[in-house]
Amino acid sequence: MRFIHTSDWHIGRQLHNQSLLEDQAYVLDQIVTLAEQHTVDAVIIAGDIYDRSIPPASAVALLDEVLNRLITELGLQVLMIAGNHDGHERLGFAAKQMAASGLHIIGPLQADLTPIRLTSSSGDAYFYPLPYAEPATVRQVFEADAKGLSVSSHEEAMALLLEQVRSHDSQGLPKVVVSHCFLDGGSESESERPLSIGGADKISPRLFSEFDYVALGHLHGPQYKGSEHVRYSGSILKYSFSEQHQHKSVTLVDVTAHTPAQIQLLPLTALRDVRIIEGELAHLLDLGKTDAKREDYLMVRLLDKHAILDAMGKLRSVYPNVLHLERTGLMAGEQAVALNRDHIKKGEMAMFRDFFSQVSGEELSDAQQAVMDEILTKLHRDEGDSGGSTRVVAKGEQSA
Amino acid sequence: MRFIHTSDWHIGRQLHNQSLLEDQAYVLDQIVTLAEQHTVDAVIIAGDIYDRSIPPASAVALLDEVLNRLITELGLQVLMIAGNHDGHERLGFAAKQMAASGLHIIGPLQADLTPIRLTSSSGDAYFYPLPYAEPATVRQVFEADAKGLSVSSHEEAMALLLEQVRSHDSQGLPKVVVSHCFLDGGSESESERPLSIGGADKISPRLFSEFDYVALGHLHGPQYKGSEHVRYSGSILKYSFSEQHQHKSVTLVDVTAHTPAQIQLLPLTALRDVRIIEGELAHLLDLGKTDAKREDYLMVRLLDKHAILDAMGKLRSVYPNVLHLERTGLMAGEQAVALNRDHIKKGEMAMFRDFFSQVSGEELSDAQQAVMDEILTKLHRDEGDSGGSTRVVAKGEQSA
Repeated sequence: MRFIHTSDWHIGRQLHNQSLLEDQAYVLDQIVTLAEQHTVDAVIIAGDIYDRSIPPASAVALLDEVLNRLITELGLQVLMIAGNHDGHERLGFAAKQMAASGLHIIGPLQADLTPIRLTSSSGDAYFYPLPYAEPATVRQVFEADAKGLSVSSHEEAMALLLEQVRSHDSQGLPKVVVSHCFLDGGSESESERPLSIGGADKISPRLFSEFDYVALGHLHGPQYKGSEHVRYSGSILKYSFSEQHQHKSVTLVDVTAHTPAQIQLLPLTALRDVRIIEGELAHLLDLGKTDAKREDYLMVRLLDKHAILDAMGKLRSVYPNVLHLERTGLMAGEQAVALNRDHIKKGEMAMFRDFFSQVSGEELSDAQQAVMDEILTKLHRDEGDSGGSTRVVAKGEQSA
Repeated sequence: MRFIHTSDWHIGRQLHNQSLLEDQAYVLDQIVTLAEQHTVDAVIIAGDIYDRSIPPASAVALLDEVLNRLITELGLQVLMIAGNHDGHERLGFAAKQMAASGLHIIGPLQADLTPIRLTSSSGDAYFYPLPYAEPATVRQVFEADAKGLSVSSHEEAMALLLEQVRSHDSQGLPKVVVSHCFLDGGSESESERPLSIGGADKISPRLFSEFDYVALGHLHGPQYKGSEHVRYSGSILKYSFSEQHQHKSVTLVDVTAHTPAQIQLLPLTALRDVRIIEGELAHLLDLGKTDAKREDYLMVRLLDKHAILDAMGKLRSVYPNVLHLERTGLMAGEQAVALNRDHIKKGEMAMFRDFFSQVSGEELSDAQQAVMDEILTKLHRDEGDSGGSTRVVAKGEQSA
């Protein structure tokens, strides 16, 4: 049995208000191609199919198209579980009517774990889909209170679910668990929504180690925990700038009874990368002219220490997809200003002089400078001597 | 081929802010039972499955359950089209993966009309599903402008769609059209959302007369137009008080090649009826004590001519599901007041006297009456002599 393990598609997600639907279609097309090239039997999606419980209609249409290609055109089996971002009832609608076609969608958690036997000419395998569920949901579905079972943490809830997997007789076939959860020690990205506050969501990787493969979703960086076969595929795109150094991929897995799973990462290439560039404006604008990847989604950290009029507009004339701008230089300058009245005054005046010349195209005259001096002095007097005048300095952050 | 034709389920709909989910589950259960009892081959739902393009998760779960019973338990075929209330992309998600199970959902209109051959031991039939589509959508999907076709009205759009049905070779099998539209001369209810303003949505029934059966949705009262086999099944529940005298049903249809369709209405019984009761409060409260159907959804028209404190609360203590209250008596009284200053003053004072005695449990003293007189006189003076004082009379309508 050979399958692709992927997760965290988050179809419909935006990055700093920029729709990523085109980027998602681009990378999902690669997954279809990879599935075909590597002659897999199935594609497993470990949750967070959509980004929201009510996805936009365009996201529904994209998923529909991808499933038609995988299932109707390529004849593959697809198994997906609901993650913490998905609407379980919505995602699970008409799931029973889809199963015969090879599409297995597991929305709400049910008390009867349904092992799904996926077929392959090289040997079948049993898949155990565990949709994301809060401990409270597990408690309710399994009537834990009536049975005197303690299910207060994610770890206890998972232990209860895995007990069913353990006790199921797979008739010697490999057991693959599909789950959406947070394993203790996993490395997080900024684009994940925490499952719980204060670490109560952490599950020990040891719970999973006995199974043949564990296809996990939730963490956006590809990684394994405990053993190589207890693994996050990671998301299909960088969904935050904190992921700029991650290499996104899907996982190609071969499972056979009684031998360790064979694992290979298949890299994904984004239509537009998500990355951070840093430098002075003039230099960046210059670099941009020959930057073949200037359409990437960018966070720009400007190192210039002086005020710049419409920095975002100037950057976007070269890099059309700047999504976020940080005036690192300004902030550094601000921090560097000693809390000394003379220094502060000098800083502000210098900045205003830059600003004035950019707007008017002329230098500040002596008379103009005197007026400005008077205004600044008055401002500082009104604020008192507490050093509060640093508030006059513009904060260096601007977001698209 | 024997099937049930139904439409306008509007799952998730509310009536005067009252959820009808329990009522819908009750009546959908009857449809499942009728389908079983009458050994039908299929259930056809002619649009407005849900009430909104984004239905609540509970509505999705209810539809899922009904489909599981019809398809998985009874082994029936189900065909449904999107109506003007449905979200076409959402409803049509994974439709291709469901078809093999016997569930045919037709969401967005597509240029290639796909005839669906439903099977029956008594002879198959072809079904032509036409999901609801605005003329603009039809124009776009069929590239009508490029082809020089005029598609400006619903009638022209339907003619274009039906041309495909006409030209399809059904190999002698009966042709059943499934459509969600407004036929000219159809009788409307208050709970339908008009498809277009000013009558541009009207389609001539003659367009449909050549087919073996036409399963229509949109109008909430069961009815046929033109010929008996061009028919609206009507909604499954009364979705407005304007429908109080309608008898809701589903349509049992037998189609065979070369013979007219056999049609029978199968009545549905609501868990709670939707009706209007009229009378004086004391009388209604008295009747309610022995009214076996006092849990019905009621609009109450109170004929009492005097003010009543908390009439809604009093009614609900007997009829728990009063959803709307009309003070018909008060309004009639108001209208009956001649625009004569003396009469008006007398009317207001009499009403205030009723009100006062209800609140305080005492009669108005002479001194109190004098104060009130003075206030009324002042009010009328401030308003001038235009008869505007009728505005002081409370409007007799109160809605839950």
